[in-house]
Amino acid sequence: MNQIPVAVLGATGTVGQKFIALLQGHPYFRIHELVASPRSAGKPYHEVCRWKQEIPMPEEIASKVVKTTEDSLESRVLFSGLDSSVAGSVETRYAEQGHAVISNSKNHRMDPDVPLIIPEINPDHFEITKKQPYKGAIITNSNCSTMFLAMTLAPLRDAFGIEAVQVTTMQAISGAGYPGVPSMDILGNVVPYISGEEDKVETEAQKILGSINGDRIEPAEFAVSAQCTRVPVFDGHTESLSIKFQKKATVDEVKQVLSGFKGMPQEAELHSAPKHPIEVMEQEDRPQPARDVWRNKGMSALVGRIRPCSVLDMKMMIMGHNTVRGAAGAAILNGEAYVHLGYLDS
Amino acid sequence: MNQIPVAVLGATGTVGQKFIALLQGHPYFRIHELVASPRSAGKPYHEVCRWKQEIPMPEEIASKVVKTTEDSLESRVLFSGLDSSVAGSVETRYAEQGHAVISNSKNHRMDPDVPLIIPEINPDHFEITKKQPYKGAIITNSNCSTMFLAMTLAPLRDAFGIEAVQVTTMQAISGAGYPGVPSMDILGNVVPYISGEEDKVETEAQKILGSINGDRIEPAEFAVSAQCTRVPVFDGHTESLSIKFQKKATVDEVKQVLSGFKGMPQEAELHSAPKHPIEVMEQEDRPQPARDVWRNKGMSALVGRIRPCSVLDMKMMIMGHNTVRGAAGAAILNGEAYVHLGYLDS
Amino acid sequence: MNQIPVAVLGATGTVGQKFIALLQGHPYFRIHELVASPRSAGKPYHEVCRWKQEIPMPEEIASKVVKTTEDSLESRVLFSGLDSSVAGSVETRYAEQGHAVISNSKNHRMDPDVPLIIPEINPDHFEITKKQPYKGAIITNSNCSTMFLAMTLAPLRDAFGIEAVQVTTMQAISGAGYPGVPSMDILGNVVPYISGEEDKVETEAQKILGSINGDRIEPAEFAVSAQCTRVPVFDGHTESLSIKFQKKATVDEVKQVLSGFKGMPQEAELHSAPKHPIEVMEQEDRPQPARDVWRNKGMSALVGRIRPCSVLDMKMMIMGHNTVRGAAGAAILNGEAYVHLGYLDS
Amino acid sequence: MNQIPVAVLGATGTVGQKFIALLQGHPYFRIHELVASPRSAGKPYHEVCRWKQEIPMPEEIASKVVKTTEDSLESRVLFSGLDSSVAGSVETRYAEQGHAVISNSKNHRMDPDVPLIIPEINPDHFEITKKQPYKGAIITNSNCSTMFLAMTLAPLRDAFGIEAVQVTTMQAISGAGYPGVPSMDILGNVVPYISGEEDKVETEAQKILGSINGDRIEPAEFAVSAQCTRVPVFDGHTESLSIKFQKKATVDEVKQVLSGFKGMPQEAELHSAPKHPIEVMEQEDRPQPARDVWRNKGMSALVGRIRPCSVLDMKMMIMGHNTVRGAAGAAILNGEAYVHLGYLDS
Repeated sequence: MNQIPVAVLGATGTVGQKFIALLQGHPYFRIHELVASPRSAGKPYHEVCRWKQEIPMPEEIASKVVKTTEDSLESRVLFSGLDSSVAGSVETRYAEQGHAVISNSKNHRMDPDVPLIIPEINPDHFEITKKQPYKGAIITNSNCSTMFLAMTLAPLRDAFGIEAVQVTTMQAISGAGYPGVPSMDILGNVVPYISGEEDKVETEAQKILGSINGDRIEPAEFAVSAQCTRVPVFDGHTESLSIKFQKKATVDEVKQVLSGFKGMPQEAELHSAPKHPIEVMEQEDRPQPARDVWRNKGMSALVGRIRPCSVLDMKMMIMGHNTVRGAAGAAILNGEAYVHLGYLDS
Repeated sequence: MNQIPVAVLGATGTVGQKFIALLQGHPYFRIHELVASPRSAGKPYHEVCRWKQEIPMPEEIASKVVKTTEDSLESRVLFSGLDSSVAGSVETRYAEQGHAVISNSKNHRMDPDVPLIIPEINPDHFEITKKQPYKGAIITNSNCSTMFLAMTLAPLRDAFGIEAVQVTTMQAISGAGYPGVPSMDILGNVVPYISGEEDKVETEAQKILGSINGDRIEPAEFAVSAQCTRVPVFDGHTESLSIKFQKKATVDEVKQVLSGFKGMPQEAELHSAPKHPIEVMEQEDRPQPARDVWRNKGMSALVGRIRPCSVLDMKMMIMGHNTVRGAAGAAILNGEAYVHLGYLDS
Repeated sequence: MNQIPVAVLGATGTVGQKFIALLQGHPYFRIHELVASPRSAGKPYHEVCRWKQEIPMPEEIASKVVKTTEDSLESRVLFSGLDSSVAGSVETRYAEQGHAVISNSKNHRMDPDVPLIIPEINPDHFEITKKQPYKGAIITNSNCSTMFLAMTLAPLRDAFGIEAVQVTTMQAISGAGYPGVPSMDILGNVVPYISGEEDKVETEAQKILGSINGDRIEPAEFAVSAQCTRVPVFDGHTESLSIKFQKKATVDEVKQVLSGFKGMPQEAELHSAPKHPIEVMEQEDRPQPARDVWRNKGMSALVGRIRPCSVLDMKMMIMGHNTVRGAAGAAILNGEAYVHLGYLDS
Repeated sequence: MNQIPVAVLGATGTVGQKFIALLQGHPYFRIHELVASPRSAGKPYHEVCRWKQEIPMPEEIASKVVKTTEDSLESRVLFSGLDSSVAGSVETRYAEQGHAVISNSKNHRMDPDVPLIIPEINPDHFEITKKQPYKGAIITNSNCSTMFLAMTLAPLRDAFGIEAVQVTTMQAISGAGYPGVPSMDILGNVVPYISGEEDKVETEAQKILGSINGDRIEPAEFAVSAQCTRVPVFDGHTESLSIKFQKKATVDEVKQVLSGFKGMPQEAELHSAPKHPIEVMEQEDRPQPARDVWRNKGMSALVGRIRPCSVLDMKMMIMGHNTVRGAAGAAILNGEAYVHLGYLDS
């Protein structure tokens, strides 16, 4: 496959850095442009970026001169980790100019003609981009907490139907970006509130599990009630989940359905696709963020403690890497699916 | 009031130490005897105790010679923080010998003739002790997580009726005693499992809200579904709660009912009673264990973020001091209520 | 004693809040004015302050309307926790206008005519304020890490002489104020650098232990070499210290000298003075910030593990409350000493 | 090269598990036997091991039946992570039986005829094993804190001579094994004491930098003074270091000497050898354990903040992975050097 030049929007931020780290060694996406705020523009990346990734800053990235969001770009695919204060209009403009904007930002997620894609679940939603009033396209992935919830719900919905979902999240600090959560707020503490988060969790999963109806996506109909908290964990969102099904299901059936879940990325063997989008863990005290967050390179939802619920039907603990599958990794997989399905050339 | 000599059973353990710390300066309970395992017996307390409390070890306690659980005791009231591996038979024996055993241990909690007391809620349950086959009596308090749940449910049950409760706990490390949770298991981590905990949370609240029926306590009938996790917090259990009522209730009504909750300890102005057993916090990001755990000397349930739930009826975040109102402080308040209601002399 | 109206400069910041918390119930300092940046001015304190103290915001403080640093003030004594970006000129102006500015800010600390006071050590340095070109005066206290170092060195210098000091600090996050240290930088981490800190530790102790020479304070002559790190501790700076004496000293002599240390605040029984400015701890694993930071209300230096050093002479671990004796509490004690010694009325 | 069957002694412990994890994919060491305490013997490894490594337990290891320390072994090389309560006699017995025991345990480290090897520094010390009264041999590596200290001192000694060293360590919890440090002791805390640790740090470096004299190793003569603390960090010991040289050295000279350091493992390109045993970091706030511990696969000493010391000559912050280069990785590198230098077949 030919190399596809890509740009990273918001390249100095937490998600932007993760895009850069995850795209190292990518078989066909090649980082061609880095885009950040005007105050960084015109300077080499290493001068303007406070790099926080596990791997050292790649040398060819370090010396690349940063462009600004007002510049024209040459890359066909733009991975956006822009701050929500600017993402809305900037992404729109680049889509109008013909770029495929694969965005992790929240701004366009709920636009009726913008797909919220998890390629294992709803790759058919890419089709809605043809109804977008852009020469290019905008494709989004979900909020980090929604990601693991939606991945877990999708196969269960297909097998048993879903009526209602109750979820309490225990979210990692990296989800708030950098500088993000002040240490005085979270060391040895639980903060029982994350601004705007519950709303996203309560609406995004339905859209992902929804269906195209004309020029808009109709959300699926089931209730989600979320309580979101922040805990002193570096990476990895844990979620305590209880689900009411439409049909009865046993613990074994639920495990089987989750373990067997596969989709288009697995069939197409996309570069960033995990072999198993969902890994069911049998140990009674797993998944744990500090121990399991890097399983399957951070690209799977990990599910444990599946057992009956005396109030709804089935409860379980789920966990996943919030900045990989929950953010930059999700967008990259979306990009791979978009390319694989031929949309880039259509 | 006359001084009442009391003994602390399990005096070197975490709960035992907290009994000692909280009983300093008590108006009528005077620590007369310290009881621990045979390996500590016969030695001064300071030689056998690895003291972990905020206050220094009181001098008159430090020099007290420790007795063993096989010794006869002179104290009328025994506060028991015994390990569950021995609490069952030891507490029974002391009750047979005529002592009032006020226990924080789990062993006798679900005995049908042993009351599980929160004096704001069910002081009438003390009456069941008269049906116990002991010269003395055994009185218990609930598990630390159940405590704040039951305190919150009691006034809501009276006002609106309760059908079902979904709860996810985020529990502090001090709840596991010392040495308890290894640091390698919890630093920067969430452990989505606490052995035996969910079971306790799912059964104890119903007993507390139940009623005496002949010689046994009949549990109240509502379903509780619990998911219990451990988080890197020192003191203070946080719980994410959703409740299905029998009658409709607005957010304001729920707040009013919780804020106005009072019981026998408040009316009798018992020494350890908080002025408000429940404190409703209005800030959107409270209660937080690191900031709020010592409010009202750790004796109240703190409730915040009361809002409608799209799956059940009403959701909220609750928090309380797991080793004060959730353990030793609860037992001391039970002791005060027992004395005040005249049971010690009956 | 008559009530003395005081103002808190920088009232919404971390140190300013601590001033307010520590001045509650003060026998003669009464908070009359709150001063903050222009953006807070004219509004009631509770609207502009993100309160982070253990105690709830006092009611009479909450409703007080905040003044700005450009306003004239009525209070005679001003406690300053101003940010160093503005403290320099603002404190100078208020001193010119006749106020006694008791400052915790670093700006004027090394001015030759401004005393750096620890009243147990150098209350005679107050005298230099008479050489200041102000109608009022500026009095400062040291940096938080220097405080416990200087308190420990002072009696040892008097007894044995000091030639050199090597110190490694492990500093709490609260030392950086709020929002201060991002959680992503410090959770499960040690940051081996604190901007500007080593410089302060290496110069302030000598000034405190120095002597007045005409119109300036001559620093004492001994070398201090500091390495400063940040650790994931909430309150309490720990310091690993090694000292080269001029005379030989045994461990017992060092302990005796430290334990017996007293000064003018103890003799005058100043309100905020600890009974023992230094507490020697004998347990081999103390002092510990999480366990000991509130000993003596956070106003003492705690010293443990005193033992010979094979490179210099004597080593030890010291610890103290960085925002109490290391900041706001130090300034309040300075204010009490200033008043007690009659400088306010001279 | 032929495959060499090896055994892991203490296979269920923290160091034993790390041996297993690090030996996966080794080019010539093949894990043939797992040895643990009698209580684990005869059972498959997965039944008796509470696995705590980042990678899942390898399948062929999981099913291997565990032997006990009383069994005869077939492997020629034994990697020992035995607990010090048994390591002394068990290692002696296996050496007598002809095995090469490459031990991470402390018991034999200071035996005059047992080499304490860091192959970049003193591979000539392997020669002393010929004076051991064993058919086989015992080779040890240093304590985890000593490792990074000795690695840093070795090239500086060769270049400038060393007179004295002052070091304060901030050690990770994984250094204490599992269950190790109770979370209640370390969460948000610094413990200024680690039993026995300062002694090891003060004596082991001199032996490593010493020289063979007949049938014993004479330690080098310079003073080390250590203060050891535990901090809430998972992996990675940080050390604040100050050194007195015999010759003057500039910061640049020190950097050059450290960066250029190489030894026999680099020349021989041993499998586990880092390309650079010492990596000098130029950023002012590095090295940091949470960010840098896995640099060079955890096999290098990382050195930062090199600057003059006003008390001794030069100070710096060093950091390294305490369970990799500081324990299991060190022993494996020792094994590789031992084999490469032909001792296994001599």
